[in-house]
Amino acid sequence: MTRRIAICAPSTPFSRDDAARVSALAQAQFPALDLVFHDQCFASAGHFAGTDAQRLSAFLECANDPAFDAVWFVRGGYGANRIAMDALPLLGPVAHGKQYLGYSDGGTLLALLYRARVGRQVHAPMPTDIRRAGGEAAVGRTLAWLAGGGDGLEPSLDGRTPAVAFNLMTLAMLCGTPLLPDLSGHVVMVEEVAEYHYAVDRLLFSVTSCLAPLGIAGLRLGRVSDVPQNDRPFGCEVEDMARHWCARTGIAFLGRADIGHDIDNKIVPFGLA
Amino acid sequence: MTRRIAICAPSTPFSRDDAARVSALAQAQFPALDLVFHDQCFASAGHFAGTDAQRLSAFLECANDPAFDAVWFVRGGYGANRIAMDALPLLGPVAHGKQYLGYSDGGTLLALLYRARVGRQVHAPMPTDIRRAGGEAAVGRTLAWLAGGGDGLEPSLDGRTPAVAFNLMTLAMLCGTPLLPDLSGHVVMVEEVAEYHYAVDRLLFSVTSCLAPLGIAGLRLGRVSDVPQNDRPFGCEVEDMARHWCARTGIAFLGRADIGHDIDNKIVPFGLA
Repeated sequence: MTRRIAICAPSTPFSRDDAARVSALAQAQFPALDLVFHDQCFASAGHFAGTDAQRLSAFLECANDPAFDAVWFVRGGYGANRIAMDALPLLGPVAHGKQYLGYSDGGTLLALLYRARVGRQVHAPMPTDIRRAGGEAAVGRTLAWLAGGGDGLEPSLDGRTPAVAFNLMTLAMLCGTPLLPDLSGHVVMVEEVAEYHYAVDRLLFSVTSCLAPLGIAGLRLGRVSDVPQNDRPFGCEVEDMARHWCARTGIAFLGRADIGHDIDNKIVPFGLA
Repeated sequence: MTRRIAICAPSTPFSRDDAARVSALAQAQFPALDLVFHDQCFASAGHFAGTDAQRLSAFLECANDPAFDAVWFVRGGYGANRIAMDALPLLGPVAHGKQYLGYSDGGTLLALLYRARVGRQVHAPMPTDIRRAGGEAAVGRTLAWLAGGGDGLEPSLDGRTPAVAFNLMTLAMLCGTPLLPDLSGHVVMVEEVAEYHYAVDRLLFSVTSCLAPLGIAGLRLGRVSDVPQNDRPFGCEVEDMARHWCARTGIAFLGRADIGHDIDNKIVPFGLA
């Protein structure tokens, strides 16, 4: 049976060429999937993939259309927070039966939907990963998941402890806002890209300080990549930062997570896998 | 009567040459002030002005020494959060009678001290501002304040509404942590430097979402300077972002504040001026 996947852009725009490459990949390897790129993926308004109204409307069309089994965010980049709170009350019953997939800035919508228990949220590679060298593997991982396979799951998931995965900056910006879900008892996985080491340390301070009182099950550290060079070395490695702040705040540091802004980024269904 | 000012570096290091310039400025224009740069200002350990233990110890020496009337942070740059919580229980009665001055990353300590009601906290130019073109004006503003003058006060302060001033990123990182003071009824002034426009919008989202439930009196926007150029324009000005998020969260937007990472940065005593 064909599964129809709606693709929209809550944050920044994609290109038709890259969309065609993703569609071709899906047709070749996963003929049971029917990918439908909403035209809004290619809209542009300043930083964003169209105005807030355009992005909101496209997301709602995808989420509320019974023809689609899943809603896949085409790309991150910033902007989902500008439509998330408006979207929530406009999601109909059909929206509750779907998967929502993405990562990076897309985590903002995943967080709010998880908090509101609307559908199933999945940290997963996005169409934009086709732009990375070897990116077919990343995109294919999400396609395989959508086709019903479980091979791409993050390996530490044990099926007994609920988990979430977030970009560290995205999660830090959600802390203390009405978009943050109840993460008590959860393994929280974080990854980061293109932030200075001192900024990563600062984010870990903020996130661990905010999450500790919630009683999370622990923190796992994904990859921290493309760190810009500062005028001097920070003085310790990122894993040491994570251990430091977990120890300071009483959070269990559980080791590494196989997630990141790269082609090896694995799949983390929110809650129980 | 001579006022003795202790200067330490809770975040990143200073240089002896620049310290000498600040001391010379003080001697020439404010002979009643005696500036004492703690040697730790010139220590270095990776990113920081010495290890966490060194920075903590120097701050405590300055705060707990009855010979000093005020503690001035030499520079921001990141790191005060790594010593703030440890410092708090070690501050003696003497520390309660002092002023603490700084801004940028120094706002982390100002926040915690304000929350704990230890002394008087003042957003004010720091010795490091001597490095800016025309920076003598900024440094002199704080020196004049320490000498008892009120000329450098941020002009919107009305003496009836309590206020605070923060770097936007610093404040965002404090939201949801045990370092954030009770800001109910306060005018909150924010300024930013060297962040992309999309990051400023994201920070405003996070900070307004966190502060709105606290019942703040309103937000004032300081200067947002040295914005890096992104691959495309954001699409609206920073003041429009502030108005947008204030409107969305029900916070009164009160207009501009005369603060920023520049030589015009004015003085904002926390609470009532």
